[in-house]
Amino acid sequence: MIKANPYYFDLSANYLFQEIARKIKQFKEKKPDADIISLGIGDVTQPIPAACIKAMVKAAEEMGSAVTMHGYGPEQGYEFLRQAIADNDYPSLGIDIDEIFVSDGAKCDVGNIQEVFSQAARVAIPDPVYPVYRDTNIMAGRQIEYLPCVREAGFSPALPKEKAELIYLCSPNNPTGAVLTKDDLKKWVDYAKENGAVIIFDSAYKEYITTPDIPHSIYEIEGAKEVAIELRSFSKTAGFTGVRCAYMVVPKALKALDAQGNETSVNALWSRRHSTKFNGVAYVVQRAAEAVFSAEGKKQVREMVGYYMENARLIRETLAAKGFTVYGGVDAPYIWLQTPAGMTSVALFEKLLNEVQLVCTPGSGFGTYGEGFVRLTSFGTRENTLKALERIGNLSL
Amino acid sequence: MIKANPYYFDLSANYLFQEIARKIKQFKEKKPDADIISLGIGDVTQPIPAACIKAMVKAAEEMGSAVTMHGYGPEQGYEFLRQAIADNDYPSLGIDIDEIFVSDGAKCDVGNIQEVFSQAARVAIPDPVYPVYRDTNIMAGRQIEYLPCVREAGFSPALPKEKAELIYLCSPNNPTGAVLTKDDLKKWVDYAKENGAVIIFDSAYKEYITTPDIPHSIYEIEGAKEVAIELRSFSKTAGFTGVRCAYMVVPKALKALDAQGNETSVNALWSRRHSTKFNGVAYVVQRAAEAVFSAEGKKQVREMVGYYMENARLIRETLAAKGFTVYGGVDAPYIWLQTPAGMTSVALFEKLLNEVQLVCTPGSGFGTYGEGFVRLTSFGTRENTLKALERIGNLSL
Repeated sequence: MIKANPYYFDLSANYLFQEIARKIKQFKEKKPDADIISLGIGDVTQPIPAACIKAMVKAAEEMGSAVTMHGYGPEQGYEFLRQAIADNDYPSLGIDIDEIFVSDGAKCDVGNIQEVFSQAARVAIPDPVYPVYRDTNIMAGRQIEYLPCVREAGFSPALPKEKAELIYLCSPNNPTGAVLTKDDLKKWVDYAKENGAVIIFDSAYKEYITTPDIPHSIYEIEGAKEVAIELRSFSKTAGFTGVRCAYMVVPKALKALDAQGNETSVNALWSRRHSTKFNGVAYVVQRAAEAVFSAEGKKQVREMVGYYMENARLIRETLAAKGFTVYGGVDAPYIWLQTPAGMTSVALFEKLLNEVQLVCTPGSGFGTYGEGFVRLTSFGTRENTLKALERIGNLSL
Repeated sequence: MIKANPYYFDLSANYLFQEIARKIKQFKEKKPDADIISLGIGDVTQPIPAACIKAMVKAAEEMGSAVTMHGYGPEQGYEFLRQAIADNDYPSLGIDIDEIFVSDGAKCDVGNIQEVFSQAARVAIPDPVYPVYRDTNIMAGRQIEYLPCVREAGFSPALPKEKAELIYLCSPNNPTGAVLTKDDLKKWVDYAKENGAVIIFDSAYKEYITTPDIPHSIYEIEGAKEVAIELRSFSKTAGFTGVRCAYMVVPKALKALDAQGNETSVNALWSRRHSTKFNGVAYVVQRAAEAVFSAEGKKQVREMVGYYMENARLIRETLAAKGFTVYGGVDAPYIWLQTPAGMTSVALFEKLLNEVQLVCTPGSGFGTYGEGFVRLTSFGTRENTLKALERIGNLSL
């Protein structure tokens, strides 16, 4: 009988979000009338910008006429969208549209990019971390070194102990809400250059940065194009979690070694992967994404981000006033809440669920160094966020 | 420096469709005023059904209100769509909705499914073949046996010479337009059972079957659920090439061996893969797909398929009358045209392009046994199809 991919059995059984979903489901079955509020999984609650709806409806109508319909589009994305991304997201960083690949989600991109590298590449991943970086490399059979992100270092990942060749960084960070400064990023770019490593830089939350001088793109660091791939998404920028559109920048200056030990273009490898296993993003979705960059779209995005960041401020300040130690929520939509002394992440998760019907995400699900924290998101409605804070106020600790 | 995936360098440089695109581009640069007609790449020209447009516009409008918007959906697809697929596509075959996985394209599914199997699995692929089956297995470093599909055997693939564990079949076939009968499929199901193999059955073109008793699904063969995964797509059924929606059936009865040699569920493996590397299909797209199964949608699909199959009939009969030998076009939207004696596929492709500005796809791009044929598609407009046939009528051979 055919053998399964053996590495799948190295995955831990409780994929974080599935496990939480199961516990919540159990709770609901026990107490069907409970009014549960979720500040757990990072899904948005505000509608997508009106400019995007307008563009999507128009595009859908175009699909209904033989003259204006669109069949297969370019796998890499329509030029109208790649140009809008280059012009608006990278106006002064010299990113060429051939370096931009549009996809149906940052989860797919961050999961698939590892395929173009050798199975023997040594991977370094922050701990705590968005589990997709970890699980997709386990599935590929790679060895992983986890880089502790501790409070004392501002949750900035420690440098690898063993030489790493594929490094994942996320800033603003999911789950800690921390950001990497220019100096932090320069340290990583230097490390990558010295060690022939590639950095996968996830900046899906860059729209939430409020502190001046925090880099929005790794390409703000000189020489980063030679060592880094950058991921971005419309999911958190424009509320596209149910619309599905993201993009990845793979610079032409980025190289890897081929089987003969010669330098080869990672952009060309990814282009081959993308055109072999993917058929482009829906035309209607790409038109909606383009509208994010219209004057109207930009204004609506600023309002949406402002709405969520006001939630973040409320959560942060209310919890601090109640005596909790909180991190994040300034440059990121995530609040990283330290558990009271002696309490595990899962214990606080269960206490919040059982006592005040509030769902958070236990930090231990994101890795060993997530123990002692839970993640709260600011993506709820204002009403639910305020109600949640009131409930926490009544919590006995 | 990090090493690239070494297997990428085993791919042939001329990915068929890219190479053809390059030749056509060169021709257009030389003769910018030429009126080129393409019956080459299998893209559709008719608008998607009005029922789907209506559903998509409504869904887009829902995304504009906080009450009706949809964030992350289930990775496997919304139940409303999976239920519609089960009820309409598999009414009597007992497929459970948990065995149906909705995706953004059959190209992605057929490219990704191999990941859940061991790299050591021996692959068998028909020749000629849709190149994605081949290239995605080369990228994964697998050994491939090619199964000749010869005219004398009705383009039905020969059984493997060496024991194969992962077998790709496509009926109605791209590129030959041939179909597998119940006896043919039974032979393959028996082979898979005897050899512990898994069949990836691509039935993306099943809507084009007109001959009675040709199976639309491999699950019409008894016992196939224990050995086969089936792929389907809305791309060719409902003109969704630019909308992006497909689905794959992974039966719970299908098993592979885990690292300890115990039987494990392929459905569970795929579910893990799907939820780790994919975030579901856009809500608006799933609503459009659901509408394919409405009474109005079904009627419109029948009309669209009828339109293309009338093109197929015209191509088939006109070419036969002109003295060509043609296959396919009865149960498939593809016509497999034999080149005149002594002429290669590429020679006929170039002759058609240069002399009558008609684009076809050279059969040799689909594999060694595609040499001596070119593929024509019936997905053009009626006007262009008739014009193309008139031009072929004037061709000097």
